[in-house]
Amino acid sequence: MRVLITGGSGFLGTKLAGALLSRGRLVDRHGALAEIQEIVLFDTSPESPFDDARVRPVNGSVCAAEDVVAAIGDDTDSVFHLAAVVSGEAEADFEKGMEVNLGGTLNVLNACRRLDYAPRVIFTSSVAAFGGELPAAVTDTTPATPQSSYGTQKVIGELLVNDLSRKGFIDGRVLRLPTICVRPGAPNRAASGFASGIVREPLNGEPAVCPVAPERLMWVMSPRTAIANLIYAHDLPAAAWGYQRVLNLEGLTVSAGQMLDALRRVCGDAVAGRVSWQRDPAVEAVVATWPGRFESERARVLGFQRDPDFETIIEHHLQEIGRV
Amino acid sequence: MRVLITGGSGFLGTKLAGALLSRGRLVDRHGALAEIQEIVLFDTSPESPFDDARVRPVNGSVCAAEDVVAAIGDDTDSVFHLAAVVSGEAEADFEKGMEVNLGGTLNVLNACRRLDYAPRVIFTSSVAAFGGELPAAVTDTTPATPQSSYGTQKVIGELLVNDLSRKGFIDGRVLRLPTICVRPGAPNRAASGFASGIVREPLNGEPAVCPVAPERLMWVMSPRTAIANLIYAHDLPAAAWGYQRVLNLEGLTVSAGQMLDALRRVCGDAVAGRVSWQRDPAVEAVVATWPGRFESERARVLGFQRDPDFETIIEHHLQEIGRV
Repeated sequence: MRVLITGGSGFLGTKLAGALLSRGRLVDRHGALAEIQEIVLFDTSPESPFDDARVRPVNGSVCAAEDVVAAIGDDTDSVFHLAAVVSGEAEADFEKGMEVNLGGTLNVLNACRRLDYAPRVIFTSSVAAFGGELPAAVTDTTPATPQSSYGTQKVIGELLVNDLSRKGFIDGRVLRLPTICVRPGAPNRAASGFASGIVREPLNGEPAVCPVAPERLMWVMSPRTAIANLIYAHDLPAAAWGYQRVLNLEGLTVSAGQMLDALRRVCGDAVAGRVSWQRDPAVEAVVATWPGRFESERARVLGFQRDPDFETIIEHHLQEIGRV
Repeated sequence: MRVLITGGSGFLGTKLAGALLSRGRLVDRHGALAEIQEIVLFDTSPESPFDDARVRPVNGSVCAAEDVVAAIGDDTDSVFHLAAVVSGEAEADFEKGMEVNLGGTLNVLNACRRLDYAPRVIFTSSVAAFGGELPAAVTDTTPATPQSSYGTQKVIGELLVNDLSRKGFIDGRVLRLPTICVRPGAPNRAASGFASGIVREPLNGEPAVCPVAPERLMWVMSPRTAIANLIYAHDLPAAAWGYQRVLNLEGLTVSAGQMLDALRRVCGDAVAGRVSWQRDPAVEAVVATWPGRFESERARVLGFQRDPDFETIIEHHLQEIGRV
């Protein structure tokens, strides 16, 4: 079978490709577990860190409908649509966010809709689907009330995936991802970026600033768990999803202060001491609209994974960067 | 001030224009009641039944961004965006629905966003925002869960209006309209069209078929009340809306059987006898996903209007067609 990953050279895209290569098989368009013949990493200036004949980087933008159609072709079994402009950037550059997060998603869905076998489409939505006045804990039936352009664009994508699935054009599945941390590499423009930065930078011997109050709750998930859940979402039968193709994952609720405490316990005072507190109103304005507490019963019942605690998330990161 | 109505030659657009002409004034971009200098009826092949110098029909399609930009220009105070492909047609012709209901709305919002004074934008959404498993009565916080392409496209419009209003690009207001009846003229392709047809056709001496079960609940509103509410929504100050620019109106809950009983009481046995019952699975499949009962507390608190009973709705229609 043939798999395409948009944002295939991004952090999650690369990790997903690596996990798929290790696994070797996915449920194909006929519902049977099949060997993965090809993984297309679709991205602008794609790079593949894999020495594997199954991986094919394809240069293109989700904003160019013809690029997307050419890459998906007429035999792609499954699309993981991860390409997106992150929250902080979508808020600062409204037009770019609309072009990539709405226009790009439309292009991907339209290219999939041309195929006559309803390909599986896995789309990543976000905690940013929620905002404003919220209950003490967000449940599976809490209305999406985004308070950012990023969240708005993600919820629109959710609606489109639901409708195209209902029509039988695609077999879509949407995961509302918690804030993913710890992300390696350079900071991005996600408003939630600090959740990775306050672990990653101190471990690199560099200072880090936590721009929110210590009591600010975050809803987080490790990259490893997120990737496992994306693959699990893909392989679940359509009947498990029913007419509601959008799922809140089971993230870990942790305050910024607790994140730092965990860092201190796992990595020691010297590392944790590199984090200072300095509130940034622009970051807080976005992050403060996101809920910190969820009761994601449906994800639990369907068998999705969760991280037990923030210490484990830090330990995952240490393994990723080869420090343990 | 200058007002533009998309779908300006449609049924609601024409009625809205007539009401605005009678009224003569609206709250302008500065928040003051101002004389209406011009009402642009924007439509494909627009026709104006008005002999009034303030009315200007403009030919164009919401699907053509350049048409919309040209019509809105740089001095339109307020836009009533009513143009849409109706529910039955959007379900039968997915691409057309997406082009008009999503693409057209994007074009209207983008044209408004260019203006530096955040024009008021009144957008009509629908009961079709709701579907699937619903509570006994839909409240102001019931999640939008559309089960039709029309409903999906309307909810996407709601999200965009909310986000552009939050960003200060527009001052948007969205009304979720009940099924509007009685519509005059020929049947359209709305799945709810029978709610008008079973009153309108018998009054014209013609037979009519009710394609749903007598116990099927409908959530309805007269054209007169809907128009009054569109104008009221326009004139309310932005502060009354806050961050939630989408409102469930207070429709009337009535079963198909009760509608026919009301027709019998108001117009007699001969008229009501022209209606026969013959269930149409295609119509029922769409209509059955819509809720019939609402508790629209916010609309009541904000001062929106409602119809007292279906007899009154029929009497409105008799006045409209000059039969009383």
